[in-house]
Amino acid sequence: MAEIASPRTDAPVRRPLAPMRPTARLDFATLGGVLGAFALIGTAIVIGGSPGAFVDLPAMLIVLGGTATVTAISYSLGEMLRSSGIVLRTLLYHREDASQTALNMIALADRARQRGSLDLQNVLQQLRHDRFLTKAVQLVVDGTPGDEIERVLGREVEATLQRHQRSAGILRRAGEVAPAMGLIGTLVGLVQMLGNLQDPSAIGPAMAVALLTTFYGAILANMVFLPLANKLDRNSGMEAQVKHLVSLGAASIGRQENPRRLETLLNTILAPGDRVRYFD
Amino acid sequence: MAEIASPRTDAPVRRPLAPMRPTARLDFATLGGVLGAFALIGTAIVIGGSPGAFVDLPAMLIVLGGTATVTAISYSLGEMLRSSGIVLRTLLYHREDASQTALNMIALADRARQRGSLDLQNVLQQLRHDRFLTKAVQLVVDGTPGDEIERVLGREVEATLQRHQRSAGILRRAGEVAPAMGLIGTLVGLVQMLGNLQDPSAIGPAMAVALLTTFYGAILANMVFLPLANKLDRNSGMEAQVKHLVSLGAASIGRQENPRRLETLLNTILAPGDRVRYFD
Amino acid sequence: MAEIASPRTDAPVRRPLAPMRPTARLDFATLGGVLGAFALIGTAIVIGGSPGAFVDLPAMLIVLGGTATVTAISYSLGEMLRSSGIVLRTLLYHREDASQTALNMIALADRARQRGSLDLQNVLQQLRHDRFLTKAVQLVVDGTPGDEIERVLGREVEATLQRHQRSAGILRRAGEVAPAMGLIGTLVGLVQMLGNLQDPSAIGPAMAVALLTTFYGAILANMVFLPLANKLDRNSGMEAQVKHLVSLGAASIGRQENPRRLETLLNTILAPGDRVRYFD
Amino acid sequence: MAEIASPRTDAPVRRPLAPMRPTARLDFATLGGVLGAFALIGTAIVIGGSPGAFVDLPAMLIVLGGTATVTAISYSLGEMLRSSGIVLRTLLYHREDASQTALNMIALADRARQRGSLDLQNVLQQLRHDRFLTKAVQLVVDGTPGDEIERVLGREVEATLQRHQRSAGILRRAGEVAPAMGLIGTLVGLVQMLGNLQDPSAIGPAMAVALLTTFYGAILANMVFLPLANKLDRNSGMEAQVKHLVSLGAASIGRQENPRRLETLLNTILAPGDRVRYFD
Amino acid sequence: MAEIASPRTDAPVRRPLAPMRPTARLDFATLGGVLGAFALIGTAIVIGGSPGAFVDLPAMLIVLGGTATVTAISYSLGEMLRSSGIVLRTLLYHREDASQTALNMIALADRARQRGSLDLQNVLQQLRHDRFLTKAVQLVVDGTPGDEIERVLGREVEATLQRHQRSAGILRRAGEVAPAMGLIGTLVGLVQMLGNLQDPSAIGPAMAVALLTTFYGAILANMVFLPLANKLDRNSGMEAQVKHLVSLGAASIGRQENPRRLETLLNTILAPGDRVRYFD
Repeated sequence: MAEIASPRTDAPVRRPLAPMRPTARLDFATLGGVLGAFALIGTAIVIGGSPGAFVDLPAMLIVLGGTATVTAISYSLGEMLRSSGIVLRTLLYHREDASQTALNMIALADRARQRGSLDLQNVLQQLRHDRFLTKAVQLVVDGTPGDEIERVLGREVEATLQRHQRSAGILRRAGEVAPAMGLIGTLVGLVQMLGNLQDPSAIGPAMAVALLTTFYGAILANMVFLPLANKLDRNSGMEAQVKHLVSLGAASIGRQENPRRLETLLNTILAPGDRVRYFD
Repeated sequence: MAEIASPRTDAPVRRPLAPMRPTARLDFATLGGVLGAFALIGTAIVIGGSPGAFVDLPAMLIVLGGTATVTAISYSLGEMLRSSGIVLRTLLYHREDASQTALNMIALADRARQRGSLDLQNVLQQLRHDRFLTKAVQLVVDGTPGDEIERVLGREVEATLQRHQRSAGILRRAGEVAPAMGLIGTLVGLVQMLGNLQDPSAIGPAMAVALLTTFYGAILANMVFLPLANKLDRNSGMEAQVKHLVSLGAASIGRQENPRRLETLLNTILAPGDRVRYFD
Repeated sequence: MAEIASPRTDAPVRRPLAPMRPTARLDFATLGGVLGAFALIGTAIVIGGSPGAFVDLPAMLIVLGGTATVTAISYSLGEMLRSSGIVLRTLLYHREDASQTALNMIALADRARQRGSLDLQNVLQQLRHDRFLTKAVQLVVDGTPGDEIERVLGREVEATLQRHQRSAGILRRAGEVAPAMGLIGTLVGLVQMLGNLQDPSAIGPAMAVALLTTFYGAILANMVFLPLANKLDRNSGMEAQVKHLVSLGAASIGRQENPRRLETLLNTILAPGDRVRYFD
Repeated sequence: MAEIASPRTDAPVRRPLAPMRPTARLDFATLGGVLGAFALIGTAIVIGGSPGAFVDLPAMLIVLGGTATVTAISYSLGEMLRSSGIVLRTLLYHREDASQTALNMIALADRARQRGSLDLQNVLQQLRHDRFLTKAVQLVVDGTPGDEIERVLGREVEATLQRHQRSAGILRRAGEVAPAMGLIGTLVGLVQMLGNLQDPSAIGPAMAVALLTTFYGAILANMVFLPLANKLDRNSGMEAQVKHLVSLGAASIGRQENPRRLETLLNTILAPGDRVRYFD
Repeated sequence: MAEIASPRTDAPVRRPLAPMRPTARLDFATLGGVLGAFALIGTAIVIGGSPGAFVDLPAMLIVLGGTATVTAISYSLGEMLRSSGIVLRTLLYHREDASQTALNMIALADRARQRGSLDLQNVLQQLRHDRFLTKAVQLVVDGTPGDEIERVLGREVEATLQRHQRSAGILRRAGEVAPAMGLIGTLVGLVQMLGNLQDPSAIGPAMAVALLTTFYGAILANMVFLPLANKLDRNSGMEAQVKHLVSLGAASIGRQENPRRLETLLNTILAPGDRVRYFD
């Protein structure tokens, strides 16, 4: 990024576009967060001395199976599988770099300004890894008017956002169902225990087992489903912001505006720490 | 769908429209989800050893009857029956295929382009099973301007959405009432038990019975009403999306736009996996 | 309605307008729901054997009096009385028939088309029981332009909706206050009981009495206030829909549009089961 | 009000404007509601026999002090004092009479119609107690166009609403903090009690003291903060409605519309019981 | 401020602009509120007699570590660090003075009126500490049209607001996670205790330890995370209001409107106590 951020020494056109390949880096925060939280609870259980008391297959079946079946009522199996795929991809989060995208769009605008919009056809091959950017540049090359470019790309961003929200919605729904199934399991255990109070010494362990479903439900909802749903929302918002930068850039090229104006515009949207300087 | 998705070999006009009959397939996810969840809880109860302790007619009466009567306060009986009908239809979910609808609209646009809008009159008979599509094509045949088509159909989609939301609202309301009636029943049981503490051995079973209404309320709300309400919302959203595709297609034909442009437009809205290629 | 729905045989103008008198029919769903729910709980209490344990005057005073006084803090006495009046009227619910209203508006439009807008002056007397319809027809007779009619009537519908929402808001507020007062009463009872643990045999009955305020609060909120608030919202929504039909009809007459077009427009908004056919 | 509502006998111009002085009447509903609710709970406590058990200084300190300090984190001291002032003014609620305001605006419009807008300068002195009305009339006298008047006054109403919402927000926040501090206090008490279970006879009183903070928190939130926040919202809404009437009236005068038209317009917004007749 | 508020005696142009340096004053309300609340709870614990019972390292680890790891799932480490920075800056809150900003904008407008917009270039140096104001004045000096100034600055305010909301969202999320981790910790403790009921004398202390995680979670959420999130929202809203004043002022200068008109406009938005008089 450094060589792009200080471009004064080169002629603008020769400035290389940053590599556009999706760099699928492992997102340590998500994976580490889930593992770390489980490790913490596990340690507390082991220190407490009776880890075996926390493993109960019927209780797990009620909470895990119940959450799966009840969530399936509201969606189709296909949707749930697709959502799992999106969640996995979230773990392998491809970092969308807003600064780099902004620089790239200004570089493209600069090139179009100097060699004409049609010349952008030559960089299309280089951008092929980024489907959205390719589409944006293709629209520019086709001579689509700026407003139309903004409308078409905006509609696509909107549709993508809605799909992601639906996936996050499934996770969020599972995060509501899990504690409810935990409560139902605990009620089952309580009713069974209260019906057989003859042996007082059995009350404690029976209560402990009854509480396990509530425990599993709380773990599943608060340490898996809800945080992942939030992560999905956040990633989706960041992806939308980056696509918005692409959309504004392509529209600006389509309107044949001055690239310096585009730089000002993009910097208005970028966070202070992400702002870019392409022109000196 | 395959032969439509690779249409290059045929002349576009002869390409057959996909069958438009509503294919009422059983929605296994919904039915299976409800049954599976109940089977899970049932198994847990049977394993626990005293299934009889979970059947209590007065408790069922309080929760089921109370939920029915209290929900009836806020609606009319007619509405509740109509809502039940919509819920049943949800179980027999007629899958709206977005891809197929998009291909059909492009095929219609292509036909109108080559033979004129009036020729669409000849396919109306073929579309008669799909009331909304028939109305859309009829508007095109009548020579209604594109913007007017979009407005009329949009208003109908909006009104349908509102009706579905009202049905989902009844279910959601029942899902709020059921746990409340469960709590009220448990309070009745607790007050009765606490007033007669002479026989300590009776406390356990009395508590168990008191908890049963809470248990029934939690089951009803979390495993029936709320998941079905969510399902209704989801189906309604998907139906609206498909109708939106029809509406955009009809408006495009009404405006006599190029069918290739319609293809681009519809693909912008479709999920990546649902995108279609009618023209090569 | 049947004779209006199959009008082909008569000349349109002679077709009689449906009677516009408000038919104040008792709304059995609301009244029956409240009574039914109370009967259910009452039966459960009587079967349990000690109905006297559920009557405690101080507890009633705390919950009923507390709900009344605390709700009064947020509103004025006048508002609360007016809201009670609206609730009572809800029990005597005057069913607004959307189909009939739509047919009436088309009949008026047809008449205006054939004899001129001014002729509608002759039906004003017949419509005098329906204040809103009278105002709409008066605006047409006065020669108000269609857009202006829509704006004036729309503003009135909006203001009515807001007034109803305020009444529903009072009920909803009371539905929040009642359980809170129940909790406060139970806390008072618990603190008193816990301070005097000398006589263990008194614990049970004291707990029972302490729980009664929670019980009353749950009953009041879940079986009276919240369902009635929902009913008010629903009635208000249906009234607004009927007024919207009147407004669209009057505006259509004011614009001198074809009554057949009005029929199409109104059917777009009506539920499928409510759609009307005035012209063959 | 009666003599203004039947003005036919006088010449319109001589009709006196209603007195515009803010009539700061004590709002008995608010003050009476708070006192009544406290009296009810107090009576229940005294009847229960041990009022001393409900007074615990450390518990009061935790809840009152905790609510004050935690609420202070989110705001500045200045804001909290200003909010207290607004709350006190709410108790001395100056009733804004929508009917009277509407009649006044029509009277002003009538006067402007007959003697010209500039003549309104002569009533400015009479209106000096109502800052908003004075500003509205001043704008008319200055010859500001109607749309501009509506925009300027609308912006001011909006800004006032936002300020009131911020004050209501502080109260609502305090209403969330109080029960949380009550819970924290109870947890402190429980942990202390559970650590010293040697003397079983001390358990009851210790539990009673531990519950007191929950009790105080529930009282503060449900009987003071939340009802007052709602009252503030309601008063703010009513003030905004009255200011909206003034704004519409001033704009109508600025547009030199017929005062009868203004009467129709204002009656559209007023509740049925508040509608006015200035002209016969 | 006094000398600016009574400017009649000087010629307007010589009136000095108020110092624009950010005056980073310690925000005692926030810091004092947090410390005060902790001091209150600490005092209650010490008075209760066994402060040692409230310190439990494993419990702290579960709640603090769990909240950190689970919150990290939904965000990246970078974001969480950046958010911590913003929270710290909140403690060192730089008071944005709406009145002073309004006076400054009117002074700038007055100067531009008398010496021309280009002359504002000379004050740019003086404003350099306020990045937003500098940008606004620069836009005016560049001759940007008023509407464009409003759009550009409005977009920047919007983007800043969104960034702040994201930071507040992290805090709010942590405020949801903390009590959930507290509940999970308590469930772990309860299950362990119930499994070993042999020694009744150990029940009390084990319960006490189990409750500690709930206690820590409640403290963290209600006394740290949620109040700070609210504070951030409030500061962000006030900063946006001040920036809105700057934006309106710059646009007004760009449109070459009369500064007196700007004074009227800004006073419409300012709270009554903050209104300014620049011209007599």
